[in-house]
Amino acid sequence: MYKLAIVGFGVVGQGLAEILLEHRERLKKEHGFEYSVVAVSDFVKGAAYDPKGLDLAKLLALAKENGISQYPGAKTGWNAIDTIVKSNADVVVEATYTDIKTAEPAYSHFKAALNSGKHLVTTNKGPTALFFREVAALAKSKKVQFRYEGTVMSGTPALNLVALCLAGNEIREIRGIVNGTTNFILTNMEKRKSYADALKEAQDLGFAEAVPDADVEGFDAMAKVVILAKAVMGADLKVADVDRTGITRITLDDINNAKAEGKRWKLIGRVAREGGAVRASVRPEKLDVADPLAGVGGATNALTFSTDLIRNVTIIGPGAGKIETGYSILVDLLAINRTAPAARPAAPKKPAPKKTAKKAAKRMKKIRKRAKKAGR
Amino acid sequence: MYKLAIVGFGVVGQGLAEILLEHRERLKKEHGFEYSVVAVSDFVKGAAYDPKGLDLAKLLALAKENGISQYPGAKTGWNAIDTIVKSNADVVVEATYTDIKTAEPAYSHFKAALNSGKHLVTTNKGPTALFFREVAALAKSKKVQFRYEGTVMSGTPALNLVALCLAGNEIREIRGIVNGTTNFILTNMEKRKSYADALKEAQDLGFAEAVPDADVEGFDAMAKVVILAKAVMGADLKVADVDRTGITRITLDDINNAKAEGKRWKLIGRVAREGGAVRASVRPEKLDVADPLAGVGGATNALTFSTDLIRNVTIIGPGAGKIETGYSILVDLLAINRTAPAARPAAPKKPAPKKTAKKAAKRMKKIRKRAKKAGR
Repeated sequence: MYKLAIVGFGVVGQGLAEILLEHRERLKKEHGFEYSVVAVSDFVKGAAYDPKGLDLAKLLALAKENGISQYPGAKTGWNAIDTIVKSNADVVVEATYTDIKTAEPAYSHFKAALNSGKHLVTTNKGPTALFFREVAALAKSKKVQFRYEGTVMSGTPALNLVALCLAGNEIREIRGIVNGTTNFILTNMEKRKSYADALKEAQDLGFAEAVPDADVEGFDAMAKVVILAKAVMGADLKVADVDRTGITRITLDDINNAKAEGKRWKLIGRVAREGGAVRASVRPEKLDVADPLAGVGGATNALTFSTDLIRNVTIIGPGAGKIETGYSILVDLLAINRTAPAARPAAPKKPAPKKTAKKAAKRMKKIRKRAKKAGR
Repeated sequence: MYKLAIVGFGVVGQGLAEILLEHRERLKKEHGFEYSVVAVSDFVKGAAYDPKGLDLAKLLALAKENGISQYPGAKTGWNAIDTIVKSNADVVVEATYTDIKTAEPAYSHFKAALNSGKHLVTTNKGPTALFFREVAALAKSKKVQFRYEGTVMSGTPALNLVALCLAGNEIREIRGIVNGTTNFILTNMEKRKSYADALKEAQDLGFAEAVPDADVEGFDAMAKVVILAKAVMGADLKVADVDRTGITRITLDDINNAKAEGKRWKLIGRVAREGGAVRASVRPEKLDVADPLAGVGGATNALTFSTDLIRNVTIIGPGAGKIETGYSILVDLLAINRTAPAARPAAPKKPAPKKTAKKAAKRMKKIRKRAKKAGR
């Protein structure tokens, strides 16, 4: 029986909760996986803790009204760090918002979870991209797992695919479509819509934000490329090392000219071993229609792994979505269940030393202020 | 340190040997996987056994001259069953030829391996398709592993993908291109070659056999579909239950008409849950070009898994090849190494009772006679 603490109860956290609630029996029967969600904490929606487990249906209902702190009978009022450090969870699910510049507050959550001997499962690209090595090393030193399948293509296998199904290969190059919004825009431009119209449609459908830069300038894809470079190729790479160009300068003429040549424009994230180094880029590339990536339309994502033993393997699937991303956490939990059922840490006997908790609280206060300023 | 016995040292067995030989250091360093090939047995190429391990370079050289039985210092003259039962191996690699009607002699090899408490890794579609339940149950009762990734798309992840990377999903449908030869022919017909010309080219390139029925009539795809139905969906399905149509009646007109509609003909293997039952088919289907399977050209294979939590995930990669299929065995060995490093059986203290060995030898004699008759 795993005890889970979910930090960040937005779309992804709720997606996970829905899956866990609906499929409790299947997970137990088919995978021997049993869980209890002991704590949830969210900036906006409130926080609740019950060491014996919370009712997920009740939690989901309260979350709708931002009323998790009204959970009857639970300990409430804890912030994220309290929830991570003081709860009796053995796995922390980190699903707060991504900040690709500072990685906070998620990075503090990551460290608090691992430092208190808890497994960490996350969908958060910020600290995974910026501090991958540090986090992986900390997890190793604490003998707990750090899992992050959902940071690249939601629940579509990417990191687990490499680690488990392509094991034994040398991965020489990874290239693919890791941002659904830009792929949706480019696919729509092939239907003779202008960039502006296609972007507007993506915004109306909720794929793109009002300020769409994270997607259309390639920042989101860049974070994913950095994660692949570090996690799969062990590269020592900075975000600034990625050669990044977005799709904002692609015109309808470009699209049509490519079509006439039997080609298609795609925003391609790429990581490749070149000599001793690993090079990374995000930029529009004109693909031959015979390329498996060329046929990937709409908001779908895809990656092609070039290997020495099984040549090119391409995986195509959703790159976002409530249940899809929630599922990425489940698949990581099942991996922990397969590989560390005995090794999972016992609940901490006593709360963390006050000094650490105080320090963390102080840090969180600062972060929250900053986040408020940024209008989150 | 795993001790391997390789039964069947044709293209696949040699592919595995080449990989093991070339990447010994990498496998040890990155996966903690160490091996020693203690026995090899092949109908044509001979047999050798050394409980302390054989030299793979020497083996590969001798195999070229059908001279494995000349391996200096090794015990020679063992047949497949001797090799399986009497050797000190803890993993048996079964890579003999596929017989989709009787599954022999491979089925006897499967049973001998599992009955002597050895893990079984195979690329052999025959017994995996025909006797999946029996073999899986035997492996379970003997507390050893039965792994068969290479039976569907060589080393391209299919069965491991479902079990590890799509874990927790309900798989509702699997459809895909699981025969490279027919896909090669259909792709070539799109270049305005007739069926006969395209088939001849496939034969000249060694993709298709002189009697091409196994491929073009859909028997090979049928075996793979049955494996997916049984292994992934737990179906109780007979080969005869598969609704099977090959590609021999597809004309150049069909191909061109489809093209004009923005569609493509593919030989699609399909397994789907329908009500309480699992239905399976292999038949040409006209796919919309937006379907990820439509873009899969040449001898490449692909599968789309339709699931309840991560929707449709498609994997595309090689479906055959010496190194590609050899790799499928490696990835299964690494899975055993991850999950059963301690549980692997000790070498049997004494050879199997003479009675069993004699009975097996008798059976093998019969099988060999039959095989000779069939011109193998």
